Amino acid sequence: MNLILLLEEDWIESDHRVRLLGRRRRHVLNVHRAGLGDELRVGRLGGAVGYGRIVHIDESALEMEVRLEADPPPPLAVSLVLALPRPPVLGRVLISVTSMGVKRIILLNAGGVEKSFWQSRALAEESIFEQCLLGLEQARDTQMPQVLLRKRFMPFVEDELKGLIAGGQGFVAEPAAASTPASTPASTPASTPASTPTGLRTPSFPGQKVGPALLAVGPESGWNSHELGCLESAGLERISLGVRPLRVETILPALLSRFT
Amino acid sequence: MNLILLLEEDWIESDHRVRLLGRRRRHVLNVHRAGLGDELRVGRLGGAVGYGRIVHIDESALEMEVRLEADPPPPLAVSLVLALPRPPVLGRVLISVTSMGVKRIILLNAGGVEKSFWQSRALAEESIFEQCLLGLEQARDTQMPQVLLRKRFMPFVEDELKGLIAGGQGFVAEPAAASTPASTPASTPASTPASTPTGLRTPSFPGQKVGPALLAVGPESGWNSHELGCLESAGLERISLGVRPLRVETILPALLSRFT
Repeated sequence: MNLILLLEEDWIESDHRVRLLGRRRRHVLNVHRAGLGDELRVGRLGGAVGYGRIVHIDESALEMEVRLEADPPPPLAVSLVLALPRPPVLGRVLISVTSMGVKRIILLNAGGVEKSFWQSRALAEESIFEQCLLGLEQARDTQMPQVLLRKRFMPFVEDELKGLIAGGQGFVAEPAAASTPASTPASTPASTPASTPTGLRTPSFPGQKVGPALLAVGPESGWNSHELGCLESAGLERISLGVRPLRVETILPALLSRFT
Repeated sequence: MNLILLLEEDWIESDHRVRLLGRRRRHVLNVHRAGLGDELRVGRLGGAVGYGRIVHIDESALEMEVRLEADPPPPLAVSLVLALPRPPVLGRVLISVTSMGVKRIILLNAGGVEKSFWQSRALAEESIFEQCLLGLEQARDTQMPQVLLRKRFMPFVEDELKGLIAGGQGFVAEPAAASTPASTPASTPASTPASTPTGLRTPSFPGQKVGPALLAVGPESGWNSHELGCLESAGLERISLGVRPLRVETILPALLSRFT
């Protein structure tokens, strides 16, 4: 926790004093090992960042005098469309991409997404909020990302995707090569050496500074050819980091860093 | 498992047949859902990649006829010096950086590394081998990285670091800003707004194509000023992805992707 995020219910008496309970109180005392008079970085959820000086500690609560004086770090101007990952991966990924400054995350269905993933508790509003909060605290940010769930691929692509790209560039990538032996064990042609990249992938990649962008990242088994066709028709350009299939938690920071 | 890595003890009878037990047999049957006659991507640890056709399955073993015909993917020409992370993070990080193609990983001590981390079972040779194996299987690679443990910072920097950089460029980064409130809660000057990057950091960054490089990444609390001074004196250039402190598992793919 590089910054303590202050929620609406934390404020007491005035605009300058907060009372922390539970996880944040314990963290300040046990991890920061802070005591009366110490100053810690704080930020108001959705607002400014600054410092809080500890003015009271008791067995259930900790109080700070707060002064907020600076803007949070600038957002990363990338909207992320992500094929819904396995639930244990989703939590880590939300922390990671939130810490990198992504402010719009669309979790999308795809052929390679198992139906059961959509039943997961990790998709409950509180769970998503909690993971994003951890990402904000990590990066000293206060601006909660918007996380949208889109359980139907085609309506999203047909009705929403173009609006999201408008004025920027769109890119599509996938953690894995387009076809893995897992999905087509018997049909792998002998003429395709394992180290050859799939013919469809392009080595081109945006430079370090691009304007607002949208990045669509597929499931670990890849987008299927229909999905890829739809995304390309919608104007997304295919990009790749190379021939190595990567885990989604690895490829996301790797791709997003190209937009910082 | 995008590729099944074949170890020395797997080979039977000839150079063309392997017998798999345990984890890999179960994975082929339960995850790949492959059966007799199916072909799967395989690679010989340290050698070529190709395909294995399943020719025998019984209750304890699975046998494949193997043909190896291509080189594994090219390595990433980056040596990684990493302040030893917390044990649960270390495993994920080894998978991630191995999957990205790093072939030399030096786990280094630093002021911000807790002594207990060095006692962890995650540092046992078998544990490290296993995590790296998962990274290779993920990326369809066969070339095991070299993982070196350096429990003393100064001897490494004085005796080994320059030799590792020779002929290439060296860079130093850290997941967090140099000073966090956790380590200096009472001394945070009121005149430093939280969103200002630490004065020492440089925004410069290598372009997309660089020659052999060495990247040194500090602990989550940052390198201390003595360590940073030593690393800079040894010729490492400071780089940063911006003002956001990131987790080590996030910043590593983000930084390494700049070298692909």
